[in-house]
Amino acid sequence: MITLAVDCMGGDHGPGVTLPACRQFLEHHPDARLILVGGQDSLQGLVHERVTHVVASEVVTMDDAVEVALRRKKDSSMRVAIQQVKDGVAHAAISAGNTGALMAIARYLLKTLDGIDRPAIATQMPNAQGGATTVLDLGANVDCTAEHLLQFAVMGSALVSVLQDRDEPLVGLLNIGEEVIKGNDVIKKAGELLRSAAKSRDLNFHGNVEGNDIFKGTVDIVVCDGFVGNVALKASEGVASMIAGALKQEFSRNIFTKIAAIVAYPVLSAIMRRMDHRRYNGAALLGLRGLVFKSHGSADALAFEQALIRAYDAARNNLLDRVRARVAHAAPLLAAADAQPAS
Amino acid sequence: MITLAVDCMGGDHGPGVTLPACRQFLEHHPDARLILVGGQDSLQGLVHERVTHVVASEVVTMDDAVEVALRRKKDSSMRVAIQQVKDGVAHAAISAGNTGALMAIARYLLKTLDGIDRPAIATQMPNAQGGATTVLDLGANVDCTAEHLLQFAVMGSALVSVLQDRDEPLVGLLNIGEEVIKGNDVIKKAGELLRSAAKSRDLNFHGNVEGNDIFKGTVDIVVCDGFVGNVALKASEGVASMIAGALKQEFSRNIFTKIAAIVAYPVLSAIMRRMDHRRYNGAALLGLRGLVFKSHGSADALAFEQALIRAYDAARNNLLDRVRARVAHAAPLLAAADAQPAS
Repeated sequence: MITLAVDCMGGDHGPGVTLPACRQFLEHHPDARLILVGGQDSLQGLVHERVTHVVASEVVTMDDAVEVALRRKKDSSMRVAIQQVKDGVAHAAISAGNTGALMAIARYLLKTLDGIDRPAIATQMPNAQGGATTVLDLGANVDCTAEHLLQFAVMGSALVSVLQDRDEPLVGLLNIGEEVIKGNDVIKKAGELLRSAAKSRDLNFHGNVEGNDIFKGTVDIVVCDGFVGNVALKASEGVASMIAGALKQEFSRNIFTKIAAIVAYPVLSAIMRRMDHRRYNGAALLGLRGLVFKSHGSADALAFEQALIRAYDAARNNLLDRVRARVAHAAPLLAAADAQPAS
Repeated sequence: MITLAVDCMGGDHGPGVTLPACRQFLEHHPDARLILVGGQDSLQGLVHERVTHVVASEVVTMDDAVEVALRRKKDSSMRVAIQQVKDGVAHAAISAGNTGALMAIARYLLKTLDGIDRPAIATQMPNAQGGATTVLDLGANVDCTAEHLLQFAVMGSALVSVLQDRDEPLVGLLNIGEEVIKGNDVIKKAGELLRSAAKSRDLNFHGNVEGNDIFKGTVDIVVCDGFVGNVALKASEGVASMIAGALKQEFSRNIFTKIAAIVAYPVLSAIMRRMDHRRYNGAALLGLRGLVFKSHGSADALAFEQALIRAYDAARNNLLDRVRARVAHAAPLLAAADAQPAS
């Protein structure tokens, strides 16, 4: 039996989305239990034999500063959901709330694993191979050292080996060219650390990759700092939206294009399904002593259910132990990297 | 009469692409002259009353290190083309060659404008408004200070006011959120400098923008460091290619989808035309005492002609003087920014 703690109040839509998603999820997962966290009245919308309600009196809003979320709202649904993981009552917590607050509260309550300085946010993006590329970090860390990027690579490898069942997932370092001389000092040093890690068989390093490689599917995991990762993710969403908008506009231009749209509808919807970012919802917060998943704030019920499924898969496959084991295995390497003076 | 110096040997295809593009360009621009630079035999493919041939014995390859291009290949077609600008014989130089080498040679021969520490590469990306967003820097500078970002904003404003005829183009600072507290120290300080510049009316600053705003068309100009800009550009190209690939694959799946493709063909090609990145080819190297334009290395004749047109428009509209005037106007601001201790 897998138990997930759900922050039902987070995200743009709150219980209106989270509760229908939870109901769907329970139907599809007969061995799962859910702990729903939120306002007493809000939770009444989902009563189920495998559901427990835990009341929390506060809600972290999208505008709340991290400090407010962390210090003042001690009874927020987000915090109480993560507390269930800390207390060992739930295997994982899921929230669609404020990312900065979620990271801060999760880090404060759960602490980081030995050998990890900073947790990272890892998400999946669809690629041209028909699979998905895992990218981390995505916004938790705006300034990263080479050592952090190495830690991200180790944690990302654990995530992909668990969720996609790959023993030696291939890691790429996001850069502005494939040559080792490319990039700034942090990136060059990270490249050196990753090559050492590959030599000691702590991970499978491909080398530098460029922005387009995320979508080509050149590697399984792309490592970057949170600033670059966030820009790459949002720029990509921007392009996809622009193309979707252009498709709609061109197909609704006149009666002939509208007929073409009807004929092409099955094909167009197959493409939309393939590109549907909702299928990739659910980012893992890695490097903590507990499992926490982040849903996109604007997720609808289908997307939020994906985040629940991802957390469920991670819990069932012992992601936490696998990350811990990988990090422990790489401990001499991580310690050596930390001790090394900046080159 | 506008005279352009063309590095005919640069790019993946060399004269096979550059000469047909030059021929097309000459047909469409009766008041333009071209100085073709390259190997003696290679240039024979285009003889024209408004064309001069200048022979250069060497070629900078895509793999050449910057040092090799700069110090050893002193008779390269790239360098000789830029020399035409320095000598006042051509109004602008265009090359599809190695970006790093082009930037280094251009900077070495032409020098930067007073008040500009580093030249930047500015390109246009299509946006959902049906227009284009100018983004800089795109790879010239992997580590930027806040002062560099301010310089990019000033130069980008000059470029857009010239090429798109906008008096007060709107500038956005690429960040991971709209709030002023977002980002690392460099970005936060750049935000402060840009707000001061807006107060003193040196530019029209919108505030922070995110990756998707490039394609929404929220602002006319997006300013970022070269690393982030390069990743955003390539990630965007990656998404667009993936979607184009998916369209092709889904429409060729079976006889029914192939019929749908025929019916939808006019609409699909209208969309492809709108998204065609070749239409946006031709990036400006800004901040130099001379005009240099960079074409994508893989450009075909249509794309390379766009780069020629862009250089022609820039020369005809005195881009150089406009950038110089803007930078001079902002000189007290740029000097103050440089003098200010890091906050």
